Amino acid sequence: VRYFDLNCDLGEERGDDAAVLPHVTSINVACGQHAGGPSVMRATVQAAVAAGVAVGAHPGFADREGFGRRALSLDPGAIFDLCLYQIGALAIFVREAGARLQHVKPHGALYHLAASDLAAAAAIARAVREARADLILVGPPASALTRAAAAEGLRFAGEIFADRSYDDSGQLVPRSDPGAMVAGDDGAVAARAVQLVQTGQVAALSGAIIDRRGQTLCLHGDEPGAPARARAIRAALTLAGVQLRPLGSWL
Amino acid sequence: VRYFDLNCDLGEERGDDAAVLPHVTSINVACGQHAGGPSVMRATVQAAVAAGVAVGAHPGFADREGFGRRALSLDPGAIFDLCLYQIGALAIFVREAGARLQHVKPHGALYHLAASDLAAAAAIARAVREARADLILVGPPASALTRAAAAEGLRFAGEIFADRSYDDSGQLVPRSDPGAMVAGDDGAVAARAVQLVQTGQVAALSGAIIDRRGQTLCLHGDEPGAPARARAIRAALTLAGVQLRPLGSWL
Amino acid sequence: VRYFDLNCDLGEERGDDAAVLPHVTSINVACGQHAGGPSVMRATVQAAVAAGVAVGAHPGFADREGFGRRALSLDPGAIFDLCLYQIGALAIFVREAGARLQHVKPHGALYHLAASDLAAAAAIARAVREARADLILVGPPASALTRAAAAEGLRFAGEIFADRSYDDSGQLVPRSDPGAMVAGDDGAVAARAVQLVQTGQVAALSGAIIDRRGQTLCLHGDEPGAPARARAIRAALTLAGVQLRPLGSWL
Amino acid sequence: VRYFDLNCDLGEERGDDAAVLPHVTSINVACGQHAGGPSVMRATVQAAVAAGVAVGAHPGFADREGFGRRALSLDPGAIFDLCLYQIGALAIFVREAGARLQHVKPHGALYHLAASDLAAAAAIARAVREARADLILVGPPASALTRAAAAEGLRFAGEIFADRSYDDSGQLVPRSDPGAMVAGDDGAVAARAVQLVQTGQVAALSGAIIDRRGQTLCLHGDEPGAPARARAIRAALTLAGVQLRPLGSWL
Repeated sequence: VRYFDLNCDLGEERGDDAAVLPHVTSINVACGQHAGGPSVMRATVQAAVAAGVAVGAHPGFADREGFGRRALSLDPGAIFDLCLYQIGALAIFVREAGARLQHVKPHGALYHLAASDLAAAAAIARAVREARADLILVGPPASALTRAAAAEGLRFAGEIFADRSYDDSGQLVPRSDPGAMVAGDDGAVAARAVQLVQTGQVAALSGAIIDRRGQTLCLHGDEPGAPARARAIRAALTLAGVQLRPLGSWL
Repeated sequence: VRYFDLNCDLGEERGDDAAVLPHVTSINVACGQHAGGPSVMRATVQAAVAAGVAVGAHPGFADREGFGRRALSLDPGAIFDLCLYQIGALAIFVREAGARLQHVKPHGALYHLAASDLAAAAAIARAVREARADLILVGPPASALTRAAAAEGLRFAGEIFADRSYDDSGQLVPRSDPGAMVAGDDGAVAARAVQLVQTGQVAALSGAIIDRRGQTLCLHGDEPGAPARARAIRAALTLAGVQLRPLGSWL
Repeated sequence: VRYFDLNCDLGEERGDDAAVLPHVTSINVACGQHAGGPSVMRATVQAAVAAGVAVGAHPGFADREGFGRRALSLDPGAIFDLCLYQIGALAIFVREAGARLQHVKPHGALYHLAASDLAAAAAIARAVREARADLILVGPPASALTRAAAAEGLRFAGEIFADRSYDDSGQLVPRSDPGAMVAGDDGAVAARAVQLVQTGQVAALSGAIIDRRGQTLCLHGDEPGAPARARAIRAALTLAGVQLRPLGSWL
Repeated sequence: VRYFDLNCDLGEERGDDAAVLPHVTSINVACGQHAGGPSVMRATVQAAVAAGVAVGAHPGFADREGFGRRALSLDPGAIFDLCLYQIGALAIFVREAGARLQHVKPHGALYHLAASDLAAAAAIARAVREARADLILVGPPASALTRAAAAEGLRFAGEIFADRSYDDSGQLVPRSDPGAMVAGDDGAVAARAVQLVQTGQVAALSGAIIDRRGQTLCLHGDEPGAPARARAIRAALTLAGVQLRPLGSWL
């Protein structure tokens, strides 16, 4: 692997956005439905563009109270509408900042739905293609969303996590479970990141080796130690010869 | 006067949108903040485009409970952001429907603010120009918004009302006042429409003659008799030799 | 059957609340999550109490855009919280108006969920009992909610519809289906109401006779002909010897 | 001064609620309009009651995007409704937890409005008295809210800040100003707290000595060092002979 992308969810009014921005190559910006809003979007996009970081839309269910982590039962048409709305709203701020929207990554319950529900995944992919055919769709590798992106002729980037545990089927272990987070210090997580990026394989919580080949690694910005961990991962990947660049420049 | 535009606020989930659509040349679509939402926006835009009616964005304060009729104290930067967000979200649905956004008309408390507050008006005009320099800004004639549009080099269409009373300064009499609505049947209102369109003058509530020259007349869609009244106005204007066409085709 | 209740959903900012209030004995007031809000709630409650109409809470999913007609995937604990919040908020306005909350009827997607999902129904019933053990729970007859009310020791009132079609299992035919509304004029609907009230039986859409015994009949307030139809139903029931009174006075 | 109260805003989904709870005697819980929601309210109230901490309602403008820091232009009647709604919603969770609501403290822009606008302050006080006549109203000392509480016969607790600067008129210096936060380490802030509590006087940003006598001191929970600072303030006040107890037990 020559190139890889590091992404982070920003503009959610949780955590310290400015601290994590220098460590990523792409960000996913909340679009005012599960979190954020016009002014936060504008400030986040301006900061990212000024820092040379690529910007993606991060559409989610319109449920601020639940932070987009609870699914709303929408038919595929309504999911298409929901995504197109949020992409349109964010894209205009990216254009105003003198850049171009690079990608779209669904958020929270919409992300999980897109992993397994082909009709929902197709609706999301359709909205992305409608917005602009050269946008990149970001989501779980080898998922319903991967197939939906292919069906729409979209580029797709699989997202991997170095600090979250996987089960044997490649799903993230839910945060509510005790083993959800990978044990170990920043060095251990960074080593796991290198392994995931280079081999596309990783140990699941059970110890079994699973495939999780991706093109972008998700960093978390909403914890106190996030910047230090981001630095460790970045350094380890660079040392391993991986060049960290926004998806749009190499995918 | 050779051409005039008839506009109506739609996509607000009040009133019968389908009944009023055949009578107007332009519509203002709620953008999911004071009313409406992605799916309503899409359906409204699709119906308008299919009917040959031009589409504008109708941004308002994010206050569903108050239907955008209550002002939120935002600084000009936040007003710019609020408008750009809503224009971006609507514009993508218009493009998806195979058309182009024609205009922007602020809603409710934002409309009233734009009438008199030059900083707010300038923020709105800046957002419209940022979205697309050939968009038309619609609002009260001879207002702060008129001047702001001129300062940004935007085309401006003054909006007039045939069924609402004006005070001597040209302001609409508030709905809460007894004399807010013009007395008389559809014929009387249609005659008042013709006079307003042709002369740019009308009798205020006091009886004084005031100037209210505009380019678009607002019809209301949320009352039982709205379609009949719209028909009467349309017929009277046509009989008087006025051609009713979307603003974008002649302004 | 000696007594019956007529209920209507109010405070939803759709339809003409004042026109329908004189025709019902109980109202269900939207609690500011799927529709309405503090000021609408207060005005609606004041008007009802002044008219001698009993007041109930009408809690729904917090989804204004979807008007509470789309389910949010909440666990039973969150459904309990959602209901208790809305009941608490409405109850204080009822007390301020000098009355007491009479009942709780879930709204939209929450109503439908409560019909069949026992865990959701139990959460709703628990919230009602927690609020006040002598509140009446209103919902579909012979449903999961009926059982949940019994398990909590709550009085339950089954709700019937004279203008909506039923399928053979006693479920309402969805509004999107062509046969959703009962054909016929106000007289026919009133006759159906009398039959439902007196016999607890009615013809389903297929023609089969089904059991739908209830204690309260739902009138709709959001259509132009609603007051006339309400008058017709009321007159027919009275003529048939049924006394129309709020649930709390006789159940 | 023998007794004093330490309060903190909780249930806002910012900061670490569990870390600050052991250090305060009262909390102000967001009521689901500017932040929080039914489930967060329930969990926050349960935790506080279990910890022996008194609970108050923290009503704010219904503006999640702006976190209640932007005023919505409401007339006094609508402010009354807004507060009563939120108090009713929170009170039922407090009762469910086996406790009684102790106080009401307006949030953000509503707090600032209540400081100077007598009509708004009167509307808030009226809502508090309507909810329960023995509730305590918390707000800025010697303000419009103080007078409104007196007019309604309510107990009032003035709130003071040890880590925020005051101007010469006793107003908090806005957060956007460079001198908004008091310089110095936790020891300096704790010493300032002791001085404020014992003398009711403090140095304004200009150096002038101003009166700010209160009954409750606000701690902030949304910063990394909050627990340590809370501990320092608590220790200093205790050492100075001040007993820290919930307002309701001694005011």
